[in-house]
Amino acid sequence: MAAMPGLFELDPRLAAATLSVGSTALSRVLLMNDARFPWIILVPAREGVTEPFQLASSEQEALWSESMVVAEAMKRHFEADKLNIAALGNQVSQLHVHHIARFHTDDAWPGPVWGVGSAIPYPEAAAEVLMDDLRSRLYEPLALREMGQE
Amino acid sequence: MAAMPGLFELDPRLAAATLSVGSTALSRVLLMNDARFPWIILVPAREGVTEPFQLASSEQEALWSESMVVAEAMKRHFEADKLNIAALGNQVSQLHVHHIARFHTDDAWPGPVWGVGSAIPYPEAAAEVLMDDLRSRLYEPLALREMGQE
Repeated sequence: MAAMPGLFELDPRLAAATLSVGSTALSRVLLMNDARFPWIILVPAREGVTEPFQLASSEQEALWSESMVVAEAMKRHFEADKLNIAALGNQVSQLHVHHIARFHTDDAWPGPVWGVGSAIPYPEAAAEVLMDDLRSRLYEPLALREMGQE
Repeated sequence: MAAMPGLFELDPRLAAATLSVGSTALSRVLLMNDARFPWIILVPAREGVTEPFQLASSEQEALWSESMVVAEAMKRHFEADKLNIAALGNQVSQLHVHHIARFHTDDAWPGPVWGVGSAIPYPEAAAEVLMDDLRSRLYEPLALREMGQE
């Protein structure tokens, strides 16, 4: 299926579950609104793409490069014991890549986080502080723009 | 942590759970010995690496390129409804990337496969046929060598 940049619309289930950190030249950068797990999702803004290998070759490279930036930044920022990086898409088929900072003490360790309990939204003030921290870490390496600045 | 190519040893838990399809210039290519889910694991042969961003930049690119080859080949070969691609490592920290062909009818759908029930090993003859099929699909795009031919 051909990727059509102009027609991209973020899946409403992803939009409802997350806060927008910003966007890169390729992707939306989203924070899962779940205070239990530091969790960033990259969504390449390409309509109709469900698997990473359906992206153009240069976009595949860009996605994995962004993914490595996000994962390494999260590892440092949260001092995580382990990063979980995954493109699953069984429930929401729109291509999206999870980056979850995991800790030996977290609610799901050592299992995966998907399907474990219910999300606990961040208190608004905490979300704002965290989003500012993440934006300052990701601004330069991802050439991040905040949404609305495009 | 620096990657030391010379000292690599496959984690014994990965070795015990899988069959060896072969190796690339970077990675071991393993088939999870679980007939419930077509499941290939790439393990970069770099000692002490637990996160993909710890690999050298060129090796990160090689890993994701291999990963995309494996995922696309599995999608075609198994006519999968969805691929699940993931680097988790909560239980086995040695860096390994899962590629799982998922079906709307499989035992874990739409949840993740990790921790669901117990592996059902392939009957020996079925494993040999499948390994031959996979090797013929992956031989050229991955410059695959069978182990023992190195």
